[in-house]
Amino acid sequence: MIAQVNLPDVLAELEAIFDRYECALVNNDVDRLNALFWRSTITLRYGVGENLYGFDAIADFRARRRPQGLERTIRRRLVTTFGRDVAVTNIEFERDGVDRIGRQSQTWVRFPEGWRIVAAHVSWMDTP
Amino acid sequence: MIAQVNLPDVLAELEAIFDRYECALVNNDVDRLNALFWRSTITLRYGVGENLYGFDAIADFRARRRPQGLERTIRRRLVTTFGRDVAVTNIEFERDGVDRIGRQSQTWVRFPEGWRIVAAHVSWMDTP
Repeated sequence: MIAQVNLPDVLAELEAIFDRYECALVNNDVDRLNALFWRSTITLRYGVGENLYGFDAIADFRARRRPQGLERTIRRRLVTTFGRDVAVTNIEFERDGVDRIGRQSQTWVRFPEGWRIVAAHVSWMDTP
Repeated sequence: MIAQVNLPDVLAELEAIFDRYECALVNNDVDRLNALFWRSTITLRYGVGENLYGFDAIADFRARRRPQGLERTIRRRLVTTFGRDVAVTNIEFERDGVDRIGRQSQTWVRFPEGWRIVAAHVSWMDTP
C-alpha cells in the first residue's frame, strides 16, 4: 500500500529530473528526451496533434519534429510523488504566438534503470 | 523498486474499476465519480476547457456540469499497472457531433481506502 505522499527526498529527486526534462524539451535534445521515456511497446504519449503508442513511435515523432518554436513558459507546475517509485508531473504552459493554455501531464515510474515516463499527455485547453 | 507490469489480478481489478468509472461518467453519476477521485488538495484534473486543482474544485465542476451529451464511444483503450498499487488508464474516444478525437488519461494509486485517481487529463486532439 502506497501511503507516503511527497517524501522530501523523492520529491526533490523528481523536481530535479523534471527540470532536466524541461531543459531537454526546449532545446530539442532528442537523445535525452528518449532516455527519459520507458522503453516499452506500451509506453504512451498523447500529444497536441498525435496519439503515439510505444517507445518507437514516440522516438520517431521526436526525430521528425520541427526543432524550432519549442520554447515555452511554465505558468504553473505541480509535482507529486507516491511512495518512492511513482510520481506525476503536471504543468500549465504558454508559448509565444499561441493564445491557448498548454497542459502537460506525465506519469513517472522508477525502474531498475531509473525514473522513466510511462504515460504522457499534452494538449491545448479549449477556450470557451 | 516497481518491476511487475500488468500482474494479471491487478490488471483485471483496474479494468473493472475503469469500466465502472466510464459507466458513471456517461451517466453523470457525480457521487460515484467523486468517490473515485483522491480526496486531496493536490488532486489535479486538466479538462477539455478547464484546469482544476484539488478535489473540491473537481467535485464543484462535476456538480455544475451540464448532464447532457456525455455519451462517448471508446475507440482505443490501454490500461497498464505497475506493481500492485499504481496504474495508468488511457482512452481515445469520439462523441457525436464532434469531429475531433478525445483523449483521457488517468493515473490511479491504491490508498488504504481503495483505488483513486490522483491526476487526470482530458483533451481534444488538434487536427492538422
